[in-house]
Amino acid sequence: MSIPKDYIESIDLTKEQILAIEELAMAMKAAIKEDGFYPHLLRNKSLGMIFQQVSTRTRLSFETSMTDLGGHAQFYGPGTIQLGGHESLGDTARVMGDLLDIMMARVNRHKDVVGLAAGAACPVINGMSEYNHPTQELGDLLTMLENLPEGKKIEDCKFAWIGDATQTCFSLMCICTIMGMDFVQFGPKGHQLTDGALQVENKVDLLEIGNKLCAVSGGTITISDDIECIKGADFIYTDVWYGLYDDEVSGTSYMDVFYPKYQVTMDMMNFAGPDAKFMHCLPANRGEEVTDEVMDDPERSICWVEAENRKHSIRAILATFGPRTPLNDEGVEYASKERLHAALAKIEELQA
Amino acid sequence: MSIPKDYIESIDLTKEQILAIEELAMAMKAAIKEDGFYPHLLRNKSLGMIFQQVSTRTRLSFETSMTDLGGHAQFYGPGTIQLGGHESLGDTARVMGDLLDIMMARVNRHKDVVGLAAGAACPVINGMSEYNHPTQELGDLLTMLENLPEGKKIEDCKFAWIGDATQTCFSLMCICTIMGMDFVQFGPKGHQLTDGALQVENKVDLLEIGNKLCAVSGGTITISDDIECIKGADFIYTDVWYGLYDDEVSGTSYMDVFYPKYQVTMDMMNFAGPDAKFMHCLPANRGEEVTDEVMDDPERSICWVEAENRKHSIRAILATFGPRTPLNDEGVEYASKERLHAALAKIEELQA
Amino acid sequence: MSIPKDYIESIDLTKEQILAIEELAMAMKAAIKEDGFYPHLLRNKSLGMIFQQVSTRTRLSFETSMTDLGGHAQFYGPGTIQLGGHESLGDTARVMGDLLDIMMARVNRHKDVVGLAAGAACPVINGMSEYNHPTQELGDLLTMLENLPEGKKIEDCKFAWIGDATQTCFSLMCICTIMGMDFVQFGPKGHQLTDGALQVENKVDLLEIGNKLCAVSGGTITISDDIECIKGADFIYTDVWYGLYDDEVSGTSYMDVFYPKYQVTMDMMNFAGPDAKFMHCLPANRGEEVTDEVMDDPERSICWVEAENRKHSIRAILATFGPRTPLNDEGVEYASKERLHAALAKIEELQA
Repeated sequence: MSIPKDYIESIDLTKEQILAIEELAMAMKAAIKEDGFYPHLLRNKSLGMIFQQVSTRTRLSFETSMTDLGGHAQFYGPGTIQLGGHESLGDTARVMGDLLDIMMARVNRHKDVVGLAAGAACPVINGMSEYNHPTQELGDLLTMLENLPEGKKIEDCKFAWIGDATQTCFSLMCICTIMGMDFVQFGPKGHQLTDGALQVENKVDLLEIGNKLCAVSGGTITISDDIECIKGADFIYTDVWYGLYDDEVSGTSYMDVFYPKYQVTMDMMNFAGPDAKFMHCLPANRGEEVTDEVMDDPERSICWVEAENRKHSIRAILATFGPRTPLNDEGVEYASKERLHAALAKIEELQA
Repeated sequence: MSIPKDYIESIDLTKEQILAIEELAMAMKAAIKEDGFYPHLLRNKSLGMIFQQVSTRTRLSFETSMTDLGGHAQFYGPGTIQLGGHESLGDTARVMGDLLDIMMARVNRHKDVVGLAAGAACPVINGMSEYNHPTQELGDLLTMLENLPEGKKIEDCKFAWIGDATQTCFSLMCICTIMGMDFVQFGPKGHQLTDGALQVENKVDLLEIGNKLCAVSGGTITISDDIECIKGADFIYTDVWYGLYDDEVSGTSYMDVFYPKYQVTMDMMNFAGPDAKFMHCLPANRGEEVTDEVMDDPERSICWVEAENRKHSIRAILATFGPRTPLNDEGVEYASKERLHAALAKIEELQA
Repeated sequence: MSIPKDYIESIDLTKEQILAIEELAMAMKAAIKEDGFYPHLLRNKSLGMIFQQVSTRTRLSFETSMTDLGGHAQFYGPGTIQLGGHESLGDTARVMGDLLDIMMARVNRHKDVVGLAAGAACPVINGMSEYNHPTQELGDLLTMLENLPEGKKIEDCKFAWIGDATQTCFSLMCICTIMGMDFVQFGPKGHQLTDGALQVENKVDLLEIGNKLCAVSGGTITISDDIECIKGADFIYTDVWYGLYDDEVSGTSYMDVFYPKYQVTMDMMNFAGPDAKFMHCLPANRGEEVTDEVMDDPERSICWVEAENRKHSIRAILATFGPRTPLNDEGVEYASKERLHAALAKIEELQA
């Protein structure tokens, strides 16, 4: 199975392919941050960014990454590009796909990014939908790979999601089980992957998807409202308690459901284990889903590195799925050169 | 007559000048699409893009083109730049013209883009007004030049506009008659170039403009509600039936006026001729002004190439009117090099 | 005192440092405008631009400057980036500061740009707040330096602000008194730096700030509603009479307060002196705070050069505070090369 044209879901990729993208991310991160060398792998290329919702991390990461790669990102804010109004989605996709070299879209309805990918000749990246958040997955996996407990491989790790079964929760279930990790959701009934809004609204058996991934990888899935399930977790992850898609449900009622049992405190972190690391996709509501003490702990909290890794992983996604141009390092010496060339050779091999 | 500073109307240019811009468009299209060489003719230059209305094709074409040419496009969305409010239009133009290297504007009132051009020291491109749509003209002419019937020159061709006398219809009349083509509008009374809203609101004798162009070029103009007029047309062109500027008139009433007589069907295409090509400036309302069968016919429909040609022609417009920098191809070999140099030499000659 | 990480207020800089930035501005202006050489001092770098209010001059100047310097500017319009809502300002600053190389912000509340600077690892530039407008200061000082009366140094000059004590008025007081100039505000009681809205709302003793600067530089401050105070002024400066922050007070009532006494007419210009130059930060309300005759006088009005100098000075601010990359002029000859190298060497010395 060759790497597909588009990046809509991580389950369209193999573990080997995903790890190759992460290695490319790490090699380019070293080249830029340590060596000051910018690999212009998308020189002169244009990325179109459709944002049906406001975004900070995702937008900045895509736009900065295109500049890093020698290309240019075009920003289309909410209300700018209509998907499936007067003009059919397929027609919009076809035209945009011919005017651009690569596209990304943050959409209100997952089927729109799927439709864009089907209709556009150029590659399309899913920048988050109400169903999943695959670029977040790769940034988070990168962060875990960089912060593995001593002596452990990624497939030996345990990951615990705390709280609501959002699309990011589902995404983390996917990436963890593709890797062969032990995935846990610690959340209240009615807000679990098996009975929450995501499951109900999408009419998809989320757990079945995860179980299939586990069958391949040797991973496991545990969903429970008993805190015992997080014991031994290497990574504790949470998200805000109001869904981006649930305007009707007020923040207060979410507090009633989740607080204080599902708030990530230093006690909870220590219950998981003395070396458990804290992750958060941000933005955070300090004092709700997580305490200041946890979030600001320089040893336990890796959520800041995680936020920066959005950029480093998205740069690798763009360089993998986009129309790569020759590396601009002839005659240039930099420490990570060999590593970067090897990482690119691997991607090319997996795209052959 | 040298090529003017601004591109506001095609009638400000000669046939020779327009064809030189199209040749530059084709040479650069070959360089980029076939040879992978990006001609950085606006290296380090900044384009300011004022959009008083939302746009997909025009905006993407300008922004991608600037990247292709080694420059940068700045996007000012609706509501961002006020033209003629507290500050006079002339003052805005003067200041913006000194902070930018080139400007384009899609405006609600044609006189605003005229005023910008008058007030700004830098070149100004009309990205569509309620009166005309010149960058569409050059993209469409490029498409016709690439799809000439065997053995015919452009001045031998017949062009038929189907439907409402919009500003794009008027624009196509201009470009066709400058070329010496036979231009036809097949549309109902009250929606013809001679009696439609465009004529009435702008208080300009549109037909007189066209007749003057015909006198120079040998072209002809026919306006009729009798379908016989489209017989023998090489190009059949239509547009949506609701005007971008007519919020009061609902889509339904437009249906009453135009449907089914003016819908482009395969029967209509065949009535025009077995080799007639279908064009549309897009977006389309499938099932209203055109059927799926026509739009999706791989032989008859050239509307997709036409959409992509917005980019290729706009790139040439920018390279013609903008402050060109030296071509970055010293020591670089590519197939279209000689053609591109010749095309640029011609433009320079016409600007002397 | 080394040049600080951020540019929030000019009073954080010494006169020597400010003049070094202006010399860099002039050297780069000559390189680009006269020699056609673009100094790529921020090659591959990304600037994030937060605009909580619409802007023309400031936005265009920053965006064009980044292109000139070989970098890229990202535009976040009003409503795009929340400062201090669900997510704390510190968290937003920390994350954005890691995804970008440099930031600027035009904010509603001065404390937000201060908070951004405190929380972000990257440099932050104040693009105007309700309290001050430092990038305007440097553009205006550049304009005065380029237009010094014959035989006078900047510290010998007299500057007269006409009208309301806006944040730009306060900013000009700061830059003038840092330079050792004689600063005058000619304005009505209740709208003076000592009793106006700016003083009252910010609970800061603005005059005390100015007096401290004068103590260092030898400058003076005069605030009066007697027109005698502008006699001998080399520069007459005004701004619109409605404050950007005062939605409650209508333009009409401002007319009652300021008109006709504080309108800059040719008579007022001549009362100041036969060679007094007219400045305005623009946009202007022609016929209110200034007459057409003054604004359009090719000898007396330098407000157009002043507007363009926003770009030239902001380019120098970005190159000073941003993460500079090596100058791309090896083997390139241009007239201002030596001057530019000297200006950069001076900045580096002041940052050591």
